[in-house]
Amino acid sequence: MKPSLSVIKIGGNVIENQTELNRFLKLFATVEGPKILVHGGGKKATRLGEKLGIKTTMVNGRRITDKDSLEVAVMVYAGLINKSIVSQLQAQDCNAIGLSGADAGIIQAVKRPSAPIDFGFVGDIVSVHTNALRTFLSSGLVPVFCALTHDEKGQMLNTNADTIASELAIALSRDYSTTLYYCFEKSGVLSDVSNDHSVIPHINKQTYYSLIKEQTIGEGMLPKLENCFHALDHSVHKVCVGNINMLQTKPSPFTTLTL
Amino acid sequence: MKPSLSVIKIGGNVIENQTELNRFLKLFATVEGPKILVHGGGKKATRLGEKLGIKTTMVNGRRITDKDSLEVAVMVYAGLINKSIVSQLQAQDCNAIGLSGADAGIIQAVKRPSAPIDFGFVGDIVSVHTNALRTFLSSGLVPVFCALTHDEKGQMLNTNADTIASELAIALSRDYSTTLYYCFEKSGVLSDVSNDHSVIPHINKQTYYSLIKEQTIGEGMLPKLENCFHALDHSVHKVCVGNINMLQTKPSPFTTLTL
Repeated sequence: MKPSLSVIKIGGNVIENQTELNRFLKLFATVEGPKILVHGGGKKATRLGEKLGIKTTMVNGRRITDKDSLEVAVMVYAGLINKSIVSQLQAQDCNAIGLSGADAGIIQAVKRPSAPIDFGFVGDIVSVHTNALRTFLSSGLVPVFCALTHDEKGQMLNTNADTIASELAIALSRDYSTTLYYCFEKSGVLSDVSNDHSVIPHINKQTYYSLIKEQTIGEGMLPKLENCFHALDHSVHKVCVGNINMLQTKPSPFTTLTL
Repeated sequence: MKPSLSVIKIGGNVIENQTELNRFLKLFATVEGPKILVHGGGKKATRLGEKLGIKTTMVNGRRITDKDSLEVAVMVYAGLINKSIVSQLQAQDCNAIGLSGADAGIIQAVKRPSAPIDFGFVGDIVSVHTNALRTFLSSGLVPVFCALTHDEKGQMLNTNADTIASELAIALSRDYSTTLYYCFEKSGVLSDVSNDHSVIPHINKQTYYSLIKEQTIGEGMLPKLENCFHALDHSVHKVCVGNINMLQTKPSPFTTLTL
């Protein structure tokens, strides 16, 4: 039997709020067995960019990462946020090691093609090299990834944190029975977006298609669920979606997705 | 016989100049055997601080690291510079992994006592934990350290890069025959500060004391040499001081220090 591995992704809402982040890191430190943390960037990069007079260009509601914005992302994600998380986990006796996809050559990406829209220095993941990662995990280290990759030619690339989490979970499923956790502001996948108590406890592929047909799921949630089933289709054992309370010993309701 | 290890420190002058940095990284990638890079910060942090309106406070010619300056240092050293170096080394097929002293809990420091002068978030190294480092080195990874440590209580600390290099070299001398390289703008220790061709090729403790007595060595060089002999006194095999050309297969003259 493969050993278990938890890949836990936290989004901007947890990063933004220092009290929430502290509570999360305490919970995370208590999660048993090998584990990996993947963190998004939150609005700190946007705020730093504004202070530096770097304009945010948006196309179709999506941010363009130009050279200056990439520098800001590298400073905030790999520097400020990553090292703050690592040092705080170290204080909880959790032997964290901060990583970008460039470190130990773990996550290789390619710059997204510039047509039809040039998103700038944004990377699509090509491959995950698990050798070093497996060495870290078997040495008791806890990898903490920020949402940056590289192209193996010297260029750092901004990369979606949800995708980094799922691709890491997929790549490590060869050696581990992997559970992927997406922590966000809601309690789970909701049957009524306006009611946080309407958590759907379990979704499989069949119910997923029904939910889409019935247009039960909020539009923002659809790409997230697609990502989840992509992971499940590629050997990830289980995906859990909810707020940070799902890491508690006695968790509040959240959504579990399986095939 | 212990295996060899090179610990190579580059200063601000190399970091500042992109052409020089590229040349250094190409040379560094060709250095054989296990190796570690330690980099200083250069003036990028000062410039970013200025752009953000953070005032640099100096006492006795030394910078005070307040909360805002520390954030800038973490962003620039652990983010921008470290990841730029790591991604460029990866492009040279050198399997670099970027680290601060907090990562994998490798370098523990204490905040420098606030009397007589409160330097702010500046760390003095207490201990180096080599377990993870030795695992990295024996896996063929190349650690790249920025000049930051942590206090194991969740606080990052600004730490002198020369000291980080020497303390790493000392700690690893239990398992390796360690050579410490200090790369800076001059060709070595000079007998005539104004003449870059006056490199003293070899200094041992006896000649070191004579040089001090004769006041041959420039004042800026004295603390550097003290640091070198501290390393030699603590089992480091050899210290080399010079510009980046000392890493060439046919190096130009530089200074070697031994006991």
